[in-house]
Amino acid sequence: MKEKISDKTINRLTLYHCILSDFITSGIETITSVQIANLLKIDDSQVRKDISLLENSGKSRVGYIVSDLKKSIEKTLGFAHPKNAFIVGAGNLGLALAKYDNFLNYGLNVLALFDNDPLKVGVTINKKEVFHISRLPELAKKMGVQMVLLTVPRIAAQSTVDFLVDSNIKYIWNFSPSVLRVPDDIEVWNENLMGNFLHFSYKISN
Amino acid sequence: MKEKISDKTINRLTLYHCILSDFITSGIETITSVQIANLLKIDDSQVRKDISLLENSGKSRVGYIVSDLKKSIEKTLGFAHPKNAFIVGAGNLGLALAKYDNFLNYGLNVLALFDNDPLKVGVTINKKEVFHISRLPELAKKMGVQMVLLTVPRIAAQSTVDFLVDSNIKYIWNFSPSVLRVPDDIEVWNENLMGNFLHFSYKISN
Repeated sequence: MKEKISDKTINRLTLYHCILSDFITSGIETITSVQIANLLKIDDSQVRKDISLLENSGKSRVGYIVSDLKKSIEKTLGFAHPKNAFIVGAGNLGLALAKYDNFLNYGLNVLALFDNDPLKVGVTINKKEVFHISRLPELAKKMGVQMVLLTVPRIAAQSTVDFLVDSNIKYIWNFSPSVLRVPDDIEVWNENLMGNFLHFSYKISN
Repeated sequence: MKEKISDKTINRLTLYHCILSDFITSGIETITSVQIANLLKIDDSQVRKDISLLENSGKSRVGYIVSDLKKSIEKTLGFAHPKNAFIVGAGNLGLALAKYDNFLNYGLNVLALFDNDPLKVGVTINKKEVFHISRLPELAKKMGVQMVLLTVPRIAAQSTVDFLVDSNIKYIWNFSPSVLRVPDDIEVWNENLMGNFLHFSYKISN
């Protein structure tokens, strides 16, 4: 097994992946570490170091082969093993995420949405049906889903999470602006959009 | 001037802010570093150290005064100086962001949306009008806007950014899954939703 890759390296690898996708769209077949470095305004030795962590990175005499390097990043970061997920909360953000086809390219397979609003139940968004939240335990079991994208309002976040935990959900990608209380065996990933904005805002005003 | 606060500390402060908002909603008036630490599963000495960087942190005999600590974080992170911004791209994500009233609480004031689709122009979303993209230079100047939330499709991202740079936009919060080429004096903040997911995904499968 290869060494565990750091958060910062993962973040850079996902940006390299983005660039490689753009190159493929443009029909360009090879790329150098200097080209990647210039686009991201980082050092090219850093790019080479990151890529050296990958298997079959597509190194050639004229740089890297774009398609090989892209596949190598996907393999390392686990795109090859898609994870099934539900979106809980069929509000604006939930619907935007349901329509985001890019997820599947990255190994995230959203199967359905859930909401407690009877007016939303039965609607189909981008081939995904909205079910009443009460059906989640049954459907999670049937479809083998352990991951949820949580997009409910802040006021409903904790009670919804308690319900999800009881429904055997193990991984929560939390888009609601709320810090969730969960048992130790549940993994929560806080998207914290406002936190990201404040980072940006703080940087540009200092 | 106080010392510059690190990215990791800013991130924790925004999570503390989230918790404080929840406490205010629940009508709880004081909070301890241990309470905050337990919610975030971090060390309480870390919490105290972070809070010590703030002015007027609301320290009392029984912990911190929730409202004072919240205000202190807001002041330190610059919520008090709202930034005007446009959303460029009135697709699903753009509309979701336009409806996200939480932004204003955090000092981000979205004034209008822009799109190149004539069918979207003239529509009003959450009191914000959608204008044709060609009107952006004029309206940015008139409204004093230098910041944009970019939510256009990947394929349109670079050409849109070139146009924004020509329109004197200086700060770009990029939600499109694309690495943008910009001059050195333009600040780009890549939201990189998929990168965030891959972090999470990588962590839970290793």
